[in-house]
Amino acid sequence: MKQPSQPSAADLSLVDVLGALADPTRLALVARLANLGSQKCADINNDAEVHKSTMSHHYRVLRQAGLTTTTIRGRERWIDLRRADLDERFPGVIDSVLNSWNTSPQ
Amino acid sequence: MKQPSQPSAADLSLVDVLGALADPTRLALVARLANLGSQKCADINNDAEVHKSTMSHHYRVLRQAGLTTTTIRGRERWIDLRRADLDERFPGVIDSVLNSWNTSPQ
Repeated sequence: MKQPSQPSAADLSLVDVLGALADPTRLALVARLANLGSQKCADINNDAEVHKSTMSHHYRVLRQAGLTTTTIRGRERWIDLRRADLDERFPGVIDSVLNSWNTSPQ
Repeated sequence: MKQPSQPSAADLSLVDVLGALADPTRLALVARLANLGSQKCADINNDAEVHKSTMSHHYRVLRQAGLTTTTIRGRERWIDLRRADLDERFPGVIDSVLNSWNTSPQ
């Protein structure tokens, strides 16, 4: 099955990563993935307070910036945080951002 | 003399800070302020490859997000990084972002 494209670890851009993180819905989603690991998009959509199509936009922004992988398994879409790639390219950025977000989500 | 307004340390928002950082010109400017301390806007404008009015926009975005202070002294405008406020509110964020930027500015 064709999988959504995503940038290689070497192509990750700090500017793009920061831009993708600069949104409360996406920060909350990244925090959820960091806490719980890989998630089914259908489950995230059920919990989200925004429309499914809005969530699809957020998944795409995160994937294109290299923050997440989206994997299609049968009829399910799964999303996961690229923690190892991000920590290698931008040491401490995801950790410090999520610590701040978890302390004071705004 | 009336000084430009800026958010208090308590009102800083992680989302706004990340959004303000998500731009190569602004990241370069924040890195410069972190390295050299307070700078005259006229000096920054002389070194910048973009128009003065574009730089004014970037100064405003950084100030409104709480990343910098702008101070008017006579006919000069000075800009400085709010390092202490940022480090207190978002520990490690500016450090890790600037380390990544200085290693690979993209």
